[in-house]
This record gives sequence, structure tokens and C-alpha cells, in this order.
Amino acid sequence: MILIVHGGAGSKKPSGRNLRTLSVALSAGFDVLKGGGSALDAVEVAIVVMEDSGLFNAGLGGHLQFDGVKRLDAAVMEGKHLRAGSVIGLEGKKHPVRAARLVMDTPHVMFTDRGARMVASVLEPLPDISGKEIRKLSAIKRRHVEILKLYEEHFSTVGAVALDRYGDLAAGASTGGVAAMLPGRVGDTPVIGAGVYADNASGAVSCTGNGEAILRLSLAKEICMNLKTKSLSRASRHSLKRLLRIGGRAGVIVINRQGRFSIAHSTPYMASGYMNDKTSEVRPSFHR
Amino acid sequence: MILIVHGGAGSKKPSGRNLRTLSVALSAGFDVLKGGGSALDAVEVAIVVMEDSGLFNAGLGGHLQFDGVKRLDAAVMEGKHLRAGSVIGLEGKKHPVRAARLVMDTPHVMFTDRGARMVASVLEPLPDISGKEIRKLSAIKRRHVEILKLYEEHFSTVGAVALDRYGDLAAGASTGGVAAMLPGRVGDTPVIGAGVYADNASGAVSCTGNGEAILRLSLAKEICMNLKTKSLSRASRHSLKRLLRIGGRAGVIVINRQGRFSIAHSTPYMASGYMNDKTSEVRPSFHR
Repeated sequence: MILIVHGGAGSKKPSGRNLRTLSVALSAGFDVLKGGGSALDAVEVAIVVMEDSGLFNAGLGGHLQFDGVKRLDAAVMEGKHLRAGSVIGLEGKKHPVRAARLVMDTPHVMFTDRGARMVASVLEPLPDISGKEIRKLSAIKRRHVEILKLYEEHFSTVGAVALDRYGDLAAGASTGGVAAMLPGRVGDTPVIGAGVYADNASGAVSCTGNGEAILRLSLAKEICMNLKTKSLSRASRHSLKRLLRIGGRAGVIVINRQGRFSIAHSTPYMASGYMNDKTSEVRPSFHR
Repeated sequence: MILIVHGGAGSKKPSGRNLRTLSVALSAGFDVLKGGGSALDAVEVAIVVMEDSGLFNAGLGGHLQFDGVKRLDAAVMEGKHLRAGSVIGLEGKKHPVRAARLVMDTPHVMFTDRGARMVASVLEPLPDISGKEIRKLSAIKRRHVEILKLYEEHFSTVGAVALDRYGDLAAGASTGGVAAMLPGRVGDTPVIGAGVYADNASGAVSCTGNGEAILRLSLAKEICMNLKTKSLSRASRHSLKRLLRIGGRAGVIVINRQGRFSIAHSTPYMASGYMNDKTSEVRPSFHR
């Protein structure tokens, strides 16, 4: 049994508070595994802690889009039956990862706003946008004359991957996208195969970084497939190099079916950590 | 130089009219290749012909969603620089594939309705929904007490893949989704890695079929990656078998970088055809 979480990859050193929240997320998720819960449940619980904290670009802390609305993305996938669920641009809900899980439990896989809202109607609402958030959006808009610059910001998407006692893998991710981004823009997070992928036959992967570049590589699926022929760290580093070649930087957390794992990033920092039966570690930067 | 097109895979035999339209699409697209145009241009032109015809579930002929609105999806990708563009749930435009191409020419990759509408503002509008289309929607709703049944219908998404004289590959797809589907549902077509993928290092793939199952496999990316180690037809058939195991049927058109191709489907029929310098063929069913 193992659980890995991350709180985004980027150029700024993660704060102590953010790292402590990752520890809390790890404990909460690993308790699920210890109690006989599934990898999918552990991934969901760990991500909910990060969405709740308001410290990451996900859930409560999700960035506002250009028009001042908070539209959130999330995805989950489990590796036994390859079931997956995702929501794109979900408004007014605090836990998009729970909405993604609800979608997974329908015959569908992906929903944009309308369908996502319907599926998520039972979930806890987001509080109103605060004055602080609106001032932050204005500051970002003023700072970046060119909208392109927005995409070079810190990526503080959150993600988790887990292996449970039954040998099943799962992956999940949740994000508020890019601060002040154009409404309707879709990054990698809610896209099965790009931001997340899980297959018991190979591994579980959750990615964060330049969403557009990750989409163009189908990064999570690529790493999963390469796990069949390459070692864990080689598979991760190989795809991160390919991503650099098309101009993208990212961080990835990967577990294979034996429970071995890799945390790798082409950004200076990636807040991340893991917990298994023996040990637990959380760091601002990880290369393993 | 080669161009392959398809007009959907399913259980009903394609009509002569539909097959003739595929021939027209092939000629129009291949003219682009002969004139020195790119594989991407050829794919776009071929798909525009099918969107224009009103005979396929794409563009003018796109299905209405459950609420009577026509929301269309499309994607394109080119294999040289791995640039890609896609629109999800685009309303009021006749040529979603052109919108996808416009997205590709921005720094973005995927847009849902709001962003897609903005990018596509210059494109030709769709005519108003006809009385016939509204009656058809009502009939479908009456026929299917269980909404799940809707997803077992004929898949008449359109797609194309091409190799140009410069050795560059491209793939594209366009669809109206599933008739009477829930607003916001996303299938494989607009998802890079699921419905389409292109990489000069391996191949170009366009898929059609059970959207949810195709998403869960990241089918187009999977076939592309398998082209590195498997023959064309083995790569296609291998992934179609894996898809069947999770309950999905599909059809795929695939070209590798040598210009060899495969057309394969796990449905009884798939309207498709190819054109190269020497020959051209269009058939209601193809296994090659």
C-alpha cells in the first residue's frame, strides 16, 4: 500500500504551510488504505483535503478565470476496470474531485459545465468569491499585458496516486486552471490520458504543468505505456524530456503495480510526498 | 501521399449516398495534397465536405442534444510539431473542424463552449434547427425509455488521416455526439489522445465508436504508441480487442510514417475509403 500526493510544480519554493497540508492529505488518504479502503477512495480523500485547504489552485483555492468566475476541473481513474470520471469547468462546488467520482459512477466519463453541474448538484457549494480573490485577479490582469505570460505562472494543481491492499491502482487530479485564463480553456487535468491515467497492467500517473503541452503528448497515458518497457524513473524522465522539446515543463507522480514509485519534475520545485507502511516523507522538491 | 476518410462505424449498412460523399471528400482532400498542401489542410478540407453534406453526424447533420440544442465537437492534430486543437460543445457553427484548426493556431489546445465560440466567431453559422430535426429528437426520446440505450446507436462521426509529400502526418475528427445525449457529455472525438492523435515518429489515428470506452483507453494515443513495436493491422486489432473487453466497439483509420495504412472496426460496418497516387477505394466495410 502506498499513497503519493503533490501540490503543484513550479518555480517558486513551496511554503511550509503547503507542505504541512500535504502531510495531512497523506495521513487522511493512507488511513483509508489502512482501513481496507480502495486506492480510488484514498486518492479522493487526499485530494479533498487539498481542495479544502484553500492553499492550492484547486477547490476552495482555485483561481478565478478572466471573467471573475471560478470554474474548476478534476478527474479520477481506477486501474482495475479502467473506469474514469472527469468534470470540466464546474462552477460553484468546493470538491470537483468528488464530482469527477460521481461522473465515474454514471455510464459517462467526461462532462463540461452543464452536465457536470447536474451530476454535482448534491455536493457542498463553494463560498462566494472574496474581495481578496477579486483584487488578486485584477492585479494579475494588470501585471500581464500579454495574456500568454499567464501560462508561465506557478502550476499549483493538486494530484494523487495510490496502490491499495487489493493490488488496485488509482489516480486523480484537481485544479482551478491558470489564473485569469480565458473562459472555456481546457488544460490537461480533466483529460483522461493527459492529466491522469491508471491501469493495473502498467501503473498510475498524475501530472501537473503546462497543460497545453501535456495534452499534446497525452503525457499520463504515454508514461503508463512506457512503464511496460522502461524503468519507472526512465519512463518519467523520458516523457518529461519529450515535453521540454515541445516547450513544456511538468511534474509527475507515478506508481507501478509493484508499488514502486517515481516523483519527477522539470520545474525547479514540486511540493510532494509519499506514505507507505514503513515511512512518510514530504519535500519541496523530489527526484526519485 | 495518402488520405483516408471515414463516415462512422456501426451496425447499419452505410447508404450509397453516404459512400458517394466519402468519395467527394477524398477527391477534395487529395487535391490539396496534389497541389502541395499539408496533410492537415487535406484532413480539414475532407472533413468540411462531410460536415457540409448533412448526411453524417457532424456539422450540418450533427445530432441534437437532449435539450434540442446542436453542440458540436471536433479536433485536429499534426504530427510534425505535435500541435493540436479542439472544440467541445460548439454551438451555431457549421464547421467545427475549422474551429478546431483555429484553436490550434492559438497557444491553446482545447476549448469548451465559451472559448470555442469566441475563437470560432468568424466562421460560417449553422442554419436554424429544422422541424424535421426536432421531430427526430422527439422520436428518439420516445423510443428510448432508458437513456443508456441511446449510446448503442449508430456512430456516424466523421474522421480523416493523411500523409503529405513532406512526410508529415495529420489526423482529424468531427461529431455531433450521441443523439439526444445529456448536455455537457464529452465523448472521444474532441479529446486529443482519445479520438485523434498524430506524431510523425509513429503515425496518425482517427477513431469513432463508443466514446466513453475510447476515452478510457486513450485509444488513438495507444495505437500510435503501439505502432513503434507492432505492425499496423496488429496495433489496430490489438487495441480494438482491448476496447471490446471494456465493452466498447469502434472503428479506426491509421497511417504510419511510411504511408502504409490500416482500416479496422469491431462494428459490422464502417463507411470508409482511401486515395493515393495510384488508386482510390470506398467501401461500406473495410478490414485492412
